[in-house]
Amino acid sequence: MKKTVLIVYAQPEPSSLTRHLVHQGIELLQKRGHDVLTSDLYAMNWKAVYDADDFPERADVRRLSFIDESRHAHKNGFQTPDVVAEQNKLLAADAVILKFPLWWFSMPAIMKGWVERVYAYNFAYGYQDAGNAFRYGDGILKGKRAMLSVMCGGPAEDYSLRGINGPLDELLFPITHGILFYPGMDVLPTFAIYGTGRLDAAGLEAAEKGWRARLERLFEDKPIAFRRQNGGDFPDRHILADNIAPGRIGIAAHIAE
Amino acid sequence: MKKTVLIVYAQPEPSSLTRHLVHQGIELLQKRGHDVLTSDLYAMNWKAVYDADDFPERADVRRLSFIDESRHAHKNGFQTPDVVAEQNKLLAADAVILKFPLWWFSMPAIMKGWVERVYAYNFAYGYQDAGNAFRYGDGILKGKRAMLSVMCGGPAEDYSLRGINGPLDELLFPITHGILFYPGMDVLPTFAIYGTGRLDAAGLEAAEKGWRARLERLFEDKPIAFRRQNGGDFPDRHILADNIAPGRIGIAAHIAE
Repeated sequence: MKKTVLIVYAQPEPSSLTRHLVHQGIELLQKRGHDVLTSDLYAMNWKAVYDADDFPERADVRRLSFIDESRHAHKNGFQTPDVVAEQNKLLAADAVILKFPLWWFSMPAIMKGWVERVYAYNFAYGYQDAGNAFRYGDGILKGKRAMLSVMCGGPAEDYSLRGINGPLDELLFPITHGILFYPGMDVLPTFAIYGTGRLDAAGLEAAEKGWRARLERLFEDKPIAFRRQNGGDFPDRHILADNIAPGRIGIAAHIAE
Repeated sequence: MKKTVLIVYAQPEPSSLTRHLVHQGIELLQKRGHDVLTSDLYAMNWKAVYDADDFPERADVRRLSFIDESRHAHKNGFQTPDVVAEQNKLLAADAVILKFPLWWFSMPAIMKGWVERVYAYNFAYGYQDAGNAFRYGDGILKGKRAMLSVMCGGPAEDYSLRGINGPLDELLFPITHGILFYPGMDVLPTFAIYGTGRLDAAGLEAAEKGWRARLERLFEDKPIAFRRQNGGDFPDRHILADNIAPGRIGIAAHIAE
């Protein structure tokens, strides 16, 4: 069945592995009959800094409250056109892929600024003007799939369960859980390539093969079993119920067995 | 003893809690005889996006490799003046405080862009042009102290050990461990204020009191016991030795008992 896939990516160098794989991915998805939307953040000269310029028509010109102004702008059609365009891409997509080089164990600033500006109040948080009633598995992007595709300069062992950087999945939890799952998307396991600065021909071939395989299964792979806020595990919407994963704490407690 | 403290902060609204506490902090530290340096990222109109403009004199004009160009610019004096100024502040500081509202479970994009641009090759990574020989407890900022001061809109319980967002310390691990400890700083426990959107007078007073107390103990408090790469726990610089925290995995394994 024909689907729409949005690829948001952040790497300006034309010959980079990130851009190479984006182009391969677009080709593969289109060949399979899907529509592909892209947000090439560097090429778009995306405004990374979330500030007063995001609110040309203020609710309160004396005091800048990002939440209040975001609600006001989203509700009254005062958002800037670049933000509206990205929100519309998210709404049109059946799957969203964020593709980036891992810089200091997170997404590049330009992509963080995409999240901050596009994820408006009443859109990605405070959905239906209902505070935190709809989040973590429920929200405006419910039913869509999401995946991170991350290029890591360091070797895989540094990101392993007892690796010196910390496990990649825990480092990325603020994004997979806090940015993708938060407004309702089903999050697939991260697709990572390691040692990107030292890839030889065989390594590149393996990377391309792995990426193609993940794209081919984009609508079949099983999402990470994050616990939905309104699925019963968080009866008060704040704390995991005592009988769920008893004794477990931290990120590990957020994934159902 | 007189010390120098650098406060880097990211919040443009003059009446915000972040800026209020920064000003109180400067006053307190100066009263105690310390020098205070500041980087008010919004007021400085800090360039958030790391891109080709950071390298006015390229090693290779055909292909933008951030690592190669960063090494080249740092070594040959081709860094932009704004980056050099921030590096000099870091070198002058005995303690570095990053103060920001938590946006999507991380620092604002403008501050992420400060890290990406200021943390040059041979400065914050690849120190002494020696690959990964000096990192995680060793590096150019060794002997300095660092602390995050984070304003969270949500309630403390959401960030607790079994809270729905995940524990704050694990969400911030990519920053405390991956950005502050990486180039050698001793990282103090994060100072967090919760429910910042709904603080009443008593809440504000408690926040101010807590912040003052942490600043007064800035050079006495015990750092987080992150494991140094070259301290013996990582014999191959990649994987935690089998006999250290046996059976533990993930972020929890990175803190010595």
